[in-house]
Amino acid sequence: MTNRTRLGQPTAPSAQESLERCGRMVLPALRDTVDRLPPGVRHMASFAFGWSDSAGAARGGGRGKGLRPALTMLSAEAVGGSAQDAVAGAVAVELVHAFSLIHDDIMDGDELRRHQETLWKAFGVGPAMLAGDALLSLAFATVSGTAAAEAAAMLSTTLIELVDGQSEDIAFEDRPWTGADAVTVDQYTRMAANKTGSLLACSAGLGALFGGGSPTATAALATAGSRLGAGFQAIDDLLGIWGDPAVTGKPVFSDLRRRKKTLPVVFALGVDDAAHAPALAELLEADPDAFDVDLAVRQAAELIERVGGRSFTEGRAELQLAQALEVIDDVAVNRGAAAELTELARFIADRSH
Amino acid sequence: MTNRTRLGQPTAPSAQESLERCGRMVLPALRDTVDRLPPGVRHMASFAFGWSDSAGAARGGGRGKGLRPALTMLSAEAVGGSAQDAVAGAVAVELVHAFSLIHDDIMDGDELRRHQETLWKAFGVGPAMLAGDALLSLAFATVSGTAAAEAAAMLSTTLIELVDGQSEDIAFEDRPWTGADAVTVDQYTRMAANKTGSLLACSAGLGALFGGGSPTATAALATAGSRLGAGFQAIDDLLGIWGDPAVTGKPVFSDLRRRKKTLPVVFALGVDDAAHAPALAELLEADPDAFDVDLAVRQAAELIERVGGRSFTEGRAELQLAQALEVIDDVAVNRGAAAELTELARFIADRSH
Repeated sequence: MTNRTRLGQPTAPSAQESLERCGRMVLPALRDTVDRLPPGVRHMASFAFGWSDSAGAARGGGRGKGLRPALTMLSAEAVGGSAQDAVAGAVAVELVHAFSLIHDDIMDGDELRRHQETLWKAFGVGPAMLAGDALLSLAFATVSGTAAAEAAAMLSTTLIELVDGQSEDIAFEDRPWTGADAVTVDQYTRMAANKTGSLLACSAGLGALFGGGSPTATAALATAGSRLGAGFQAIDDLLGIWGDPAVTGKPVFSDLRRRKKTLPVVFALGVDDAAHAPALAELLEADPDAFDVDLAVRQAAELIERVGGRSFTEGRAELQLAQALEVIDDVAVNRGAAAELTELARFIADRSH
Repeated sequence: MTNRTRLGQPTAPSAQESLERCGRMVLPALRDTVDRLPPGVRHMASFAFGWSDSAGAARGGGRGKGLRPALTMLSAEAVGGSAQDAVAGAVAVELVHAFSLIHDDIMDGDELRRHQETLWKAFGVGPAMLAGDALLSLAFATVSGTAAAEAAAMLSTTLIELVDGQSEDIAFEDRPWTGADAVTVDQYTRMAANKTGSLLACSAGLGALFGGGSPTATAALATAGSRLGAGFQAIDDLLGIWGDPAVTGKPVFSDLRRRKKTLPVVFALGVDDAAHAPALAELLEADPDAFDVDLAVRQAAELIERVGGRSFTEGRAELQLAQALEVIDDVAVNRGAAAELTELARFIADRSH
């Protein structure tokens, strides 16, 4: 990621520099907050954040890039406030993010996350569920001392949207590939807005709120966050099919093997002249005992691409990012912070890293 | 439950009458709150509350007696406020209670609750986890518009204690029956205070807070709720071993069959002259393939009773109830409400109903 210089504008720090600056402010507060948990749950939380191994020994680094907290801090600055004012909001969104990953991994039965055991795999399903519940509760505790009423309301609305999105995503698994009950692009878009967009909307919105932004600026930045989330999800969907296994850490055509109804697939099955739909559905349902799965998923990916599923999703991702950047440009009163926020938004959307 | 008349004092309504009065105020607000959820999650919540069947058709009645919301409402009145002021708090504690039952049933693998399928059994583990998460989030939404900062802080502290207690209860399962690592009465007491006491403490404390009680009165009523919870749990432990299957709906010696480390067991294994402990541990561990389990659990129950586990637990329950009643008597400014609250506390502790 290189800095972009425009005539007459100062060079904004790179997204990496912004992430590091925000991390230096958020991480100590996050660790202090997690330290308030009782020992058993704290131990699991520390493992989930990558600060210790399952035996409790300290580890360097930590998981995650801190995209959401950085979005919160930069949003606070963009509306003219200070990043410091938004630390509680940044901690809250990071706790909600951690909660949602822990519960999602249980639901999806995923055993690995970022090359480490998932929490339920290391500690058991029951304890991991409880650790997630504790982090969710802690998120509310974090904002309850500050701009309490509005922040808590924003957080709980977000959580209900997030849960609704995740719940729809699960329900999509049981829907048919084709016919009247098949998932439509609109239904997919609504699900993704809830599942992925809502927490990024909350990240930006809480930042604007704590940064003292007007209700209009706060709502606008929340919208930018939501668009960014939709773009992020679209790119995730592209990587889930066409991503380089060396970069994603997942097998090639991973989402097709898992029979996920992602945007390229939903689009491909729903295009007007869908004569290919039954053939595609058959490839996606390929019984591993009867078919060569590697061949079936490659043929499915080719078919999805030929009928426009890949380019539609790429277009969607670009449009959503462009809309997010337009809102940021429109609403920000601190131009330096706006430039930094723009870099961060591009970084979030550029998932090749 | 009969009314108790004391010289010069009016007869307090029976606990049943108080529960009905509070229910008439809380239930419409609870239903309105749940109606704010998105359809999929709302459907599951409605099933969990017993308002509809798994297909979504309305059912009469509903599950649960509303003990916690009533405790909230009467606590508000006891400190001189109105029950109406405490409706948001009452809805919040009922939502947290429902959340905790849903997640507990998943963790414990329980398939029935009050003669109905549990939520995970009817809708699957993933959707049920999410429904629990949604109800927890909704609880925070409920209090966020009112005495927000303090109420949300109280709620999140409670949730973290609740999760800690549940997490310790799970960890107790892996502890040995005897030796240095065996669960002690003190450790058990701390776990139960968190697992059962904290939500009853929050129920009374939120009521006092919304009723405009002083910080001292609020803290005192929270303590009364905590004592009541400890007494409630002690009685639950007694019923888990010696309860009448016709009343509890569980098999005789149910908790011994499930190898639960409840208070009578922990006490019996830990009494000073514990020569009987290895024999008791052997009975509790009885391998169903090698032993007559019915005989083993009956012998274990007899041994626990002989060394004082039953009478110790009964004494503990009585003491905790007496302490709760003393605090209520001490702190209440509205004598009529105090009498009603006393009846409710006795009703909660008297689990033969």
